[in-house]
Amino acid sequence: MPQPLRDSPSAHLGDRLEDVETPSLIIDLDAFEKNLSTMASFARAAGVRLRPHAKTHKCVEVAKRQIALGAVGQCVQKVGEAEVLVNGGVADVLVSNQIVGDRKLDRLMVLASRAKIGLCFDDASQIKAASDAACRAGVTIDGLVEIETGMQRCGVAPGEAASLLAKQIANSPGLRFAGIQAYQGKAQHFRTPTERKAAIDVAVQAIRKTLDALDAAGLKSESITGAGTGTFHLEATSGVYSELQAGSYAFMDADYAANQQADGRPSEFAHSLFILSTVMSIAGDGWCVVDAGLKSFSGESGMPLVHHRPGLTVVGLSDEHSRIDLAPGTPKPRLGEKLLLIPGHCDPTINLHDHYVCIRNGIVEALWPIEARGASR
Amino acid sequence: MPQPLRDSPSAHLGDRLEDVETPSLIIDLDAFEKNLSTMASFARAAGVRLRPHAKTHKCVEVAKRQIALGAVGQCVQKVGEAEVLVNGGVADVLVSNQIVGDRKLDRLMVLASRAKIGLCFDDASQIKAASDAACRAGVTIDGLVEIETGMQRCGVAPGEAASLLAKQIANSPGLRFAGIQAYQGKAQHFRTPTERKAAIDVAVQAIRKTLDALDAAGLKSESITGAGTGTFHLEATSGVYSELQAGSYAFMDADYAANQQADGRPSEFAHSLFILSTVMSIAGDGWCVVDAGLKSFSGESGMPLVHHRPGLTVVGLSDEHSRIDLAPGTPKPRLGEKLLLIPGHCDPTINLHDHYVCIRNGIVEALWPIEARGASR
Repeated sequence: MPQPLRDSPSAHLGDRLEDVETPSLIIDLDAFEKNLSTMASFARAAGVRLRPHAKTHKCVEVAKRQIALGAVGQCVQKVGEAEVLVNGGVADVLVSNQIVGDRKLDRLMVLASRAKIGLCFDDASQIKAASDAACRAGVTIDGLVEIETGMQRCGVAPGEAASLLAKQIANSPGLRFAGIQAYQGKAQHFRTPTERKAAIDVAVQAIRKTLDALDAAGLKSESITGAGTGTFHLEATSGVYSELQAGSYAFMDADYAANQQADGRPSEFAHSLFILSTVMSIAGDGWCVVDAGLKSFSGESGMPLVHHRPGLTVVGLSDEHSRIDLAPGTPKPRLGEKLLLIPGHCDPTINLHDHYVCIRNGIVEALWPIEARGASR
Repeated sequence: MPQPLRDSPSAHLGDRLEDVETPSLIIDLDAFEKNLSTMASFARAAGVRLRPHAKTHKCVEVAKRQIALGAVGQCVQKVGEAEVLVNGGVADVLVSNQIVGDRKLDRLMVLASRAKIGLCFDDASQIKAASDAACRAGVTIDGLVEIETGMQRCGVAPGEAASLLAKQIANSPGLRFAGIQAYQGKAQHFRTPTERKAAIDVAVQAIRKTLDALDAAGLKSESITGAGTGTFHLEATSGVYSELQAGSYAFMDADYAANQQADGRPSEFAHSLFILSTVMSIAGDGWCVVDAGLKSFSGESGMPLVHHRPGLTVVGLSDEHSRIDLAPGTPKPRLGEKLLLIPGHCDPTINLHDHYVCIRNGIVEALWPIEARGASR
């Protein structure tokens, strides 16, 4: 059973979609469930593990459904997210990120007595601090070396430098060397398949170079983990990745949809995530305004799309308004009409909301709390 | 006394700034208090009312401090924000926006038995719905006509069309015609003083045209309300505006700071709002990475600035990371070092957090809950 909501519900079970209070974060359950099983089937067929990223959904119920379909566990970016998942019963959580600070490390180690915990490293002093924290707590966690894949964010240089950190992990009490974190985040958003393929090829070379150095040091990588919704086919068939960390596939968003459009092929994933909004002003000549803006979806990845309403284009975002322009000949929506918006970027959009309103056949079937909303510490 | 927090505190009273858990939303109390009194003094000297916008701060404690310095009340965009303020003891709240939907109107009318409530209109059917809701609740609220100022968002055409709606308000039971809402939001972000002046001149002409039509109809506008942090000098000295709705002045952000820079004059307001972040990766050659990203500040108005650290420039944002590049010769920050970021846009940034950590002389003096975080319905 999902937990109680921490905010006032915007709907009741059995409500019709058009009666849900706005703005609300909507899941189309049929599309969502199909997305989950499509990715689960893909990973099974490709012979790679699936460890979906909970930074996208931030919800225990979603994590449990992914795991029920075969996912080995979940990824998170922050200790606060790991706390939510482990408290919710998730048994295997990888922090696909560096954690700096003794208090955070101590909180993470508390979880390691109840769940399998992994953590990524790109610095010798981080390894020392985590080992000390694990020893204080009397636990052992998995340690992965994060390598620079071409993304130019976190990650140590592939090859010898990575191997040195791996050796340090293997020799540190409370840590067990478990493999390589190799996520190429920029590649997820490259528009053409050629650019994405070139970027993942670079990441694969970085992994191979690191594996050679680890071989020479006598270290075995149980897990080579990475990949996202924009590139997972490439990592899965690379011959080196053993685990996929995609998250957005559950929902899709306007940014990922633009990749598919550039590819000229239909996506295997459908839009399942929407912001339900209400038309609140029709005074303008050639546009209308809805009651959802930058406090209901993030705006840094471009404008949301209006779902299944050709001729309506979001052109301006304010805190609590979106202006929607009408193509010539398009009838103006009624005042009070509800419109579904497809957010530009699903992860920071979901982080604005306290619950999902889950819809099937136009009826509210469930309300799921987003327990890790705001859990960035 | 501030209310209890609804999340785990990221600090305790008496902590040093450098010991606050990250990411956290920080207020520099000296700068914040000076900003509040500067604007209060300005409004008093200019002979206009100040009604700061609570969509910026979303916090009862901030509202009360603004009112203690002479503000007549608060503006909000949503009924949920009004509920928080009235429940917190604010006696005068203007919804500077349209509210569509009977359930929302009924919630708003409940507040009108405990506080003075105002609401804006740009459509005859909205006026009818609000009048009906006020009659159901047995209350009377103020009704303002929102006019199109050149912003091209909400608002009816100035002049005769606005006057018709004003007459309808004046003749509707449960509503009292109170004046004109005339906010030019786009002008707040124009970079040059010339552009801002031209935009507010257009808004002033729209108001004058509307006042003429109202005069002819025998209607008096008690309040002409609008203005923001980017233009309030212009509205205050326009001869028509009687009330300022600025909100960001309490905090400032990188976007408003860019206006000041373009003006070539020092701002009367200081940056008082920051995201405290921790350097979590120094593996990169020429950059470091901090643990705050799109889930700690909004990214649609550009990159945050690194406070008082010349040579450090934020160049890339992810959900939970910001990449900071180092100018040639700039020493790389230490792993674990704390950096203060000035957000690009304060309003949607504050909406990501559950509490402010308030600092004076480097010590945590207070924790204020952001009660209206997420109150977009």
